[in-house]
Amino acid sequence: MITIGIDLGGTNIAAGLVNEAGKIIARDSTPTKAGRPYDEIMADMGTLVQKLLRENKFTEEDVKYVGIGAPGVLDNKKGTVTDNGNLHWVDYPITAKLQPYIHKPIYLGNDANVAAWAEYVRGCGKGAENFIMLTLGTGVGGGIILNGKLYTGSHNIGAEIGHTPLKAGGELCGCGNKGCMEAYCSATALIRNAKREAVNVPESAIAKANVISAKTVIDAAKAGDELGVRLFQDYVSDLAQAIAGIINFLDPDIIALGGGVANAGEFLLEPLRREVPKHVTFPGGMATRLLSAQMGNDAGIMGAALLGEG
Amino acid sequence: MITIGIDLGGTNIAAGLVNEAGKIIARDSTPTKAGRPYDEIMADMGTLVQKLLRENKFTEEDVKYVGIGAPGVLDNKKGTVTDNGNLHWVDYPITAKLQPYIHKPIYLGNDANVAAWAEYVRGCGKGAENFIMLTLGTGVGGGIILNGKLYTGSHNIGAEIGHTPLKAGGELCGCGNKGCMEAYCSATALIRNAKREAVNVPESAIAKANVISAKTVIDAAKAGDELGVRLFQDYVSDLAQAIAGIINFLDPDIIALGGGVANAGEFLLEPLRREVPKHVTFPGGMATRLLSAQMGNDAGIMGAALLGEG
Repeated sequence: MITIGIDLGGTNIAAGLVNEAGKIIARDSTPTKAGRPYDEIMADMGTLVQKLLRENKFTEEDVKYVGIGAPGVLDNKKGTVTDNGNLHWVDYPITAKLQPYIHKPIYLGNDANVAAWAEYVRGCGKGAENFIMLTLGTGVGGGIILNGKLYTGSHNIGAEIGHTPLKAGGELCGCGNKGCMEAYCSATALIRNAKREAVNVPESAIAKANVISAKTVIDAAKAGDELGVRLFQDYVSDLAQAIAGIINFLDPDIIALGGGVANAGEFLLEPLRREVPKHVTFPGGMATRLLSAQMGNDAGIMGAALLGEG
Repeated sequence: MITIGIDLGGTNIAAGLVNEAGKIIARDSTPTKAGRPYDEIMADMGTLVQKLLRENKFTEEDVKYVGIGAPGVLDNKKGTVTDNGNLHWVDYPITAKLQPYIHKPIYLGNDANVAAWAEYVRGCGKGAENFIMLTLGTGVGGGIILNGKLYTGSHNIGAEIGHTPLKAGGELCGCGNKGCMEAYCSATALIRNAKREAVNVPESAIAKANVISAKTVIDAAKAGDELGVRLFQDYVSDLAQAIAGIINFLDPDIIALGGGVANAGEFLLEPLRREVPKHVTFPGGMATRLLSAQMGNDAGIMGAALLGEG
């Protein structure tokens, strides 16, 4: 038996077939073309699934279930998108619309939660009881696994971890609040600070870059560029305090870091492992492990394909 | 059948008998006299339990189980106090030491968690799936119930909710961090700010008070005292942002407020219900209810007496 994982993104719909060993054995994608009628998008998703099965010599009979990871607020029980900022879907019955194309159980999950679930079941979270994943990208996303189960809150809207206060009253966040964790710990925040400071340090590699990305700052820090080192240290200091707060609050086994900034790997983890414990208040010190997420770009398809587990 | 709840505090050991209807039908206490040998304290606890049963015409046969709420880091499974700041108990086998006095199952819980559990099972949290209690006292304590179960983290040290950052780098917290929620939302923080400001506003009722407590500030705010109103508004603003962060993160059904500051009741809840939603980032707005804790001083005994449930 295989399962099908679908990653519905703002740009592409990606789908993959996952075998019982947990390997993606085939994949395909089609453009989302966001903005067109929902039913057209879902028809393309259905066609993509049928094509993927046909071209890989599978039939519906081989499929255990289908999982869909989608952005926004979802209702897993009803199988609907409750509210989706980017795709502008409101109360849309996503699983019912896919059902005519594949007559198997369909599970639905928020994309950030799905990625965390993949990391928990197949990645660096394996065997943990309580596991939290932070995605340090354009925003700061997250997923929480507690007692071995994906936690999505009382209203399926949980784990907006990026919108907990870090410095209330501080930097303006995309959500309208001031001082959210996201306003300090996202790639966007690192880039904002770099642009702000670079104008005063024209000799920095950052000021000389054509486009400033999180990687520009990290590469500069690695090379010992003074501004790069300072920006990265400040970033680590902020992130360390946010992570310590999560540890003090929820005491998980593992916190995993994914997303663009986490691509820095040990260059980020090593100073974090020094800084975070300074802010952990437990008498026995810090027992939570900080790890790099391992699933990378496969997390969306893989997590969706695992939504029927556990 | 009855259950016995024991509240081991720094000043007193309080014990109560709780009937099947969930009522405390008898209670007694004895001074803890912290600092003396542990075994003496536990002997007094055992004697207290035996006396309470005898004087109320019960025998061991009538007892279903005993629950103990104690401060510090506990290991429920091993029945030990792992580390206790105030009583200076380290790796002490608390349940084994009580067992000779009462031959029934003994459960152990952290005092803040026990109070939250009481509030969940018998108080304002009844029927909720996910419930968080904040205790706004000398510090900011808390307890988390997720999926109907008390959540204490992977290492039994979870829910130090007061030591999540609110304004990282800000006011010094008792834990050594700067800018913890506790450093803004505890009674201690409110009193610190009142003392700091009162010297500049000698005409304020707060400046004229002999002793400044949280109640002094709240009473002044209620009376329209300018400094009192300002201090209380600032307190509400800080607390609202902290609460909204918890909602964004964990999306519970209910957040309950207990402890000294929460004695202000609707005077605190009413402005919070206005301020918190401004910082909640979910597209559908705030679905979590904010309530006052109902159990008051009985929470310790009652929660301990309920530790064997659920």
